[in-house]
Amino acid sequence: MPGEANKLLSSSIRRLIRAGRTQQLERVVNKSHPADLAHLFGSLTPAQRLTVFELIKDFERRGELMAELEAEALQELLASITDEALVQYLNEMPPDDATDLLQEVDGTRAETLLQQMGHEEQSEATSLLGYDEESAGGLMSTDFLALNEETTAGEAIARLQNEDEAEIIFYIYVVNDLGQLVGVTSLRELVKQPARRALGDFMITDVIRVESMTDQEDVARLVARYNLLALPVVEDNNQLVGVVTVDDIIDVIRTEATEDILLMGGAGDEAQVSPNRSPFSSARARIPWIFPSFVAGAVGVVVVSQFEQELARILPLAALIPMIMGLAGNIGTQSSTIVTRGLALGKFDFVQVGRVLGKELIVGVIAGLCYGVIIGVFAAMFFLGNQDVFGAGTLKFGGAIGVSVLASMALAACIGGALPMVFSRLSLDPALALGPFVSTSIDVCAISLYLVIASLLLT
Amino acid sequence: MPGEANKLLSSSIRRLIRAGRTQQLERVVNKSHPADLAHLFGSLTPAQRLTVFELIKDFERRGELMAELEAEALQELLASITDEALVQYLNEMPPDDATDLLQEVDGTRAETLLQQMGHEEQSEATSLLGYDEESAGGLMSTDFLALNEETTAGEAIARLQNEDEAEIIFYIYVVNDLGQLVGVTSLRELVKQPARRALGDFMITDVIRVESMTDQEDVARLVARYNLLALPVVEDNNQLVGVVTVDDIIDVIRTEATEDILLMGGAGDEAQVSPNRSPFSSARARIPWIFPSFVAGAVGVVVVSQFEQELARILPLAALIPMIMGLAGNIGTQSSTIVTRGLALGKFDFVQVGRVLGKELIVGVIAGLCYGVIIGVFAAMFFLGNQDVFGAGTLKFGGAIGVSVLASMALAACIGGALPMVFSRLSLDPALALGPFVSTSIDVCAISLYLVIASLLLT
Repeated sequence: MPGEANKLLSSSIRRLIRAGRTQQLERVVNKSHPADLAHLFGSLTPAQRLTVFELIKDFERRGELMAELEAEALQELLASITDEALVQYLNEMPPDDATDLLQEVDGTRAETLLQQMGHEEQSEATSLLGYDEESAGGLMSTDFLALNEETTAGEAIARLQNEDEAEIIFYIYVVNDLGQLVGVTSLRELVKQPARRALGDFMITDVIRVESMTDQEDVARLVARYNLLALPVVEDNNQLVGVVTVDDIIDVIRTEATEDILLMGGAGDEAQVSPNRSPFSSARARIPWIFPSFVAGAVGVVVVSQFEQELARILPLAALIPMIMGLAGNIGTQSSTIVTRGLALGKFDFVQVGRVLGKELIVGVIAGLCYGVIIGVFAAMFFLGNQDVFGAGTLKFGGAIGVSVLASMALAACIGGALPMVFSRLSLDPALALGPFVSTSIDVCAISLYLVIASLLLT
Repeated sequence: MPGEANKLLSSSIRRLIRAGRTQQLERVVNKSHPADLAHLFGSLTPAQRLTVFELIKDFERRGELMAELEAEALQELLASITDEALVQYLNEMPPDDATDLLQEVDGTRAETLLQQMGHEEQSEATSLLGYDEESAGGLMSTDFLALNEETTAGEAIARLQNEDEAEIIFYIYVVNDLGQLVGVTSLRELVKQPARRALGDFMITDVIRVESMTDQEDVARLVARYNLLALPVVEDNNQLVGVVTVDDIIDVIRTEATEDILLMGGAGDEAQVSPNRSPFSSARARIPWIFPSFVAGAVGVVVVSQFEQELARILPLAALIPMIMGLAGNIGTQSSTIVTRGLALGKFDFVQVGRVLGKELIVGVIAGLCYGVIIGVFAAMFFLGNQDVFGAGTLKFGGAIGVSVLASMALAACIGGALPMVFSRLSLDPALALGPFVSTSIDVCAISLYLVIASLLLT
């Protein structure tokens, strides 16, 4: 269904717009899932998007569509909607989506919209706006069902039958008279229990919960580890304030992975992945990411040109530079990737710093020994096959190159393994260690060490 | 809770083992979540792991623990468990977990175990073993509840009250007399409906479903897009054969992201992220990943040494090599990262190949112009400040370097953007385009172009 069906939907919607067949278009649009409509917005012009949007009859579905849109398409749409209409959609959206949307419009407009929203919706949004976007509070919904521990199973089912708003219905959270989270049960358990039994008598009391300030990555790790569908959020005195659902966690996991991968590729922010971004705006965003590489490269130029005489005299020294950079960069990136991902998945912690670095050093030495021999032999064969540049023996030349390779690879593995730990200690994102600036710096260190050792051994 | 509480659990369990306080240890172990026990296995010795494992009273929980273990810890544990015991755990595990476990033991043992399993468990596992591990069939569970469309709401609730096995209880799938999927409803809907109403009268008929052969990445994209908790799997004639749940999808998303990131870092398989792997086994796994880089590097050495005379005569040519490699590699990696991630998130497809590549070319030219000017000026100032090597003017030297930078960056952006598309067309993982071999190859192309253009313009 995914690829094919969507292409079909996209092309038939465009055809109907061009042909002006509004009635048929309206039928197709209202039968489509808002997430599919959001996806096909990428292939429509701004005017076509507005046409489609305004054909959606149900305001709740308009809200759902907006919640699924990418930043740029959303901005465009927001610019062509009146405040009055927007307030209606906001009132229909789940409070967490409404809050996300309010964060996308500029400050003064958000203020105006907020004041025009319904009383309850306004107070929910206001309280949610107070949380950090990347915390449990920023992710949670306040549309959940919490029942008092003295409620009976029968009363609970009756409540559910009349409840239309609550988003989360598979877990039922149980609170005491003070609103503190004391347990959890499920609708399934409710239908199994005698109608007159109180929730407090059969609920599970050992509830996995998070604080509202917990970072979203930690929330995602808990949901993944315990296979949860939802996670209650508490504050201060264990007061239940909201619920994070697994669909939001999936978005967190995907976004965090995308961020890490783009950081690793030195490719800027997530908006890069949007196919609708113009090449100029994209170039503007990407050029600064290359600059640190230029600085590291410039240092490299300065270093390499210190070896002017050796390079002019011993041609192979220069010709081997790209290979040394490739291999050292390669093992350094391996180390930083493994350590960064291990930190992200919660497999390492700081207790293990020494062990992790020791391991990277050993791996660097083993790999360096292996490639030192290969490259030493390769260099001696390739360069000395034609001419004996040095007058000295093949063994000396090959050996010098081999030792330099060994040293640079071991150094690169150590630096590569250490940097994510350092970044993490400094409360920076360890994935920064995967960026091109760092790998170029590792390259420069490795090249310097290679040139120093090789020229010492060869003069 | 995550980090701190786990460290506490881990250290108290180790303390209790050392002190030989078995009773207390047993209490702690049986109160802990199997996922937490699996996590702390990393910091225990094999003997300690076996002690902890055997203290778990409930066989179902032993199974849960095994399902959460990492490959290496699992292998060790499997080696010290008798077939007889293992069969008991397998019988208690959900069929999808049991199948995953059977895939971890070697062929003949798996055969023996399978034959000793209970009749029903055996037939479920046998049918699941037939699916590709990375398909919807490989992910799905066969423990689901499917009710006939003529069942009434009241009967459905009664069935649920007596049902202990089914894993998935928030959606209730509805089938016709032929076992074909015709609709879906929820327990919440059941309790709202009059007890005598048939499921067929109020179910939702537009069910999002996948085929059993659908790739797990496509399954994950659907779950993410439609915010689903579970997804029914059908075969042939729309026959309902299983259900994929969101917790398995979270594992897929995390694993796929980890694979992409490790591939990008040229760091081998997922086992690298395990802190328990020995440096020697780790080096053995990582060294082959560096080999393609060596091959590409060797080509680079051959190419660069063709410019022997120019390099000996024009020192700056050699000194600039690391910088050109850094910048071209940088923009090439940006392009391949953006395109690969866009493909993974389903944002691009092949209809857009021309558009995507055209965009990368334009970005490459803009960035190349920008850094061409910067590096041209930098090179002229740095090298000609000291000595006028060429006799020719500063403008000529700086210009030649600038043009070479422009050409290499534009080339790198194009190749980088094209490769993920090519890999994807060839049904290979587009993330391969992020691996070090490819980036070293891009570097070699860029360096060749740089040397050709710069030496043409400077002689």
